[in-house]
Amino acid sequence: MNRIGDRPLLHVDAHAHAWRPAEARTRFRAGLTGPTAGVAAGHTQVNLISVPADWAYDMLLFCQRNPKPRPVLDVTDAGSHTTVLADGADLRTDLPRYRVWRDGELVAEPTDVRAHWRDDLVSFLIGCSFTFEWALTEAGVPIRHIEQGRNVPMYMTDRQCRSAGRLHGPMVVSMRPVPPEHLAAAIRESSLLPAVHGGPVHCGDPSVLGIGDLGHPDFGDPVEIAPDDIPVFWACGVTPQAAVTASRPPFAITHAPGQMFLTDARDAQYRVLSAA
Amino acid sequence: MNRIGDRPLLHVDAHAHAWRPAEARTRFRAGLTGPTAGVAAGHTQVNLISVPADWAYDMLLFCQRNPKPRPVLDVTDAGSHTTVLADGADLRTDLPRYRVWRDGELVAEPTDVRAHWRDDLVSFLIGCSFTFEWALTEAGVPIRHIEQGRNVPMYMTDRQCRSAGRLHGPMVVSMRPVPPEHLAAAIRESSLLPAVHGGPVHCGDPSVLGIGDLGHPDFGDPVEIAPDDIPVFWACGVTPQAAVTASRPPFAITHAPGQMFLTDARDAQYRVLSAA
Repeated sequence: MNRIGDRPLLHVDAHAHAWRPAEARTRFRAGLTGPTAGVAAGHTQVNLISVPADWAYDMLLFCQRNPKPRPVLDVTDAGSHTTVLADGADLRTDLPRYRVWRDGELVAEPTDVRAHWRDDLVSFLIGCSFTFEWALTEAGVPIRHIEQGRNVPMYMTDRQCRSAGRLHGPMVVSMRPVPPEHLAAAIRESSLLPAVHGGPVHCGDPSVLGIGDLGHPDFGDPVEIAPDDIPVFWACGVTPQAAVTASRPPFAITHAPGQMFLTDARDAQYRVLSAA
Repeated sequence: MNRIGDRPLLHVDAHAHAWRPAEARTRFRAGLTGPTAGVAAGHTQVNLISVPADWAYDMLLFCQRNPKPRPVLDVTDAGSHTTVLADGADLRTDLPRYRVWRDGELVAEPTDVRAHWRDDLVSFLIGCSFTFEWALTEAGVPIRHIEQGRNVPMYMTDRQCRSAGRLHGPMVVSMRPVPPEHLAAAIRESSLLPAVHGGPVHCGDPSVLGIGDLGHPDFGDPVEIAPDDIPVFWACGVTPQAAVTASRPPFAITHAPGQMFLTDARDAQYRVLSAA
């Protein structure tokens, strides 16, 4: 499921770090693919989920009822493939890689979804933990999975989201080991970003969330935890994909994990004290 | 339009201040009516707007696109008159007074809407400035309209909300004169409550918002402004009623201005640093 297809991999280097968002989108539109962590640093990356208009109310209500895993930054009009968050962008072509779902099953992972697009699709752009990782880094909090060159580990929990119409599913969390001397900053800085998951849902014993073994995440990579590190759990943008799997809408398009949509917004503008 | 009907007025005194929310709801259900400012202090009061299910998606999207005037704290399932925010409450009877709207026109102001209720109504509970006034008071910021025993003054602006489907309308703001030495606290404390309008949309010259004369508010009462006070403008929960007037949905029920729904939630739990 996490295989990378036939396009050249994106190796994020100092160059991609300094790209402007429109430049990154142009390259993805031309076929570049791969994880977007670190691309166009300081600009807001978002999760994408597009569903038929008939499912849009359930999806929007599901987000409203579960704001920690599902912070909505924009919703398009039905059929539109543009967004106020990215000037000139085309949501059908400008992500590095997509996932196409039918009846809750993954059926394709193309780099362009024009052939799958429907005029009744409503697209939801949902906040991503990359934004609070930016804030944690600015505050001097070490990010273990970045130090170790891995994807963040993610886990299904035994906490069900509050359902909305036909949509239901478990909350998915990401975990970052935080040294005790940085715990206050990690909680404070992420809490100041309620538009991108906000503060953690739990710190410490993973069994409280029904997680058995931190060494075997459900998504992403395991990460080494230093002896004094405290595991800190944040609500995760993979939660919508878990709801698609659980609720089986007839059709959906999402981004591929880690291959996000680059907006023109800046991470800093979602800090609560400077929100627009 | 702001007349008070045939029921005894609620005089908020030390007793009402100390009521528990369920006690207040029981009294309103029994017929007590009047402004709720100060009732059950420290508990969260909310705006109500109920629309037919056919309009619910437009309403929820209008809120998502305009989070400052329209922070949604709960949305009910169609036809339900209960909410997770208030145990045992009935949204049809437990507000002091309602407004009933047909085609954008105010047609009744009853104290009970059971006779008007429809099984397809979806109710939106929307954050109210009473919550951030609590935070300002805790921080020592004087609230001029409370000192002067008046309703807060509210103004239509020349800023249009971002439209959603059939819903459109101007942003309405409330104005509080703030002494310069309290300005930082007023901005900081309200910004920490993004679930209840958040930080101000403007400080200073009212003409920037298209407001001509602070002495003639569109809703509420004029308030005396001390010589050094700075007028500070926050997005206002009357914005949905302005959208009803502008967009003319066939049917809607709202609370009467200043006569809010008392939830069991506590104002403090909406502070971003301690949000659930």
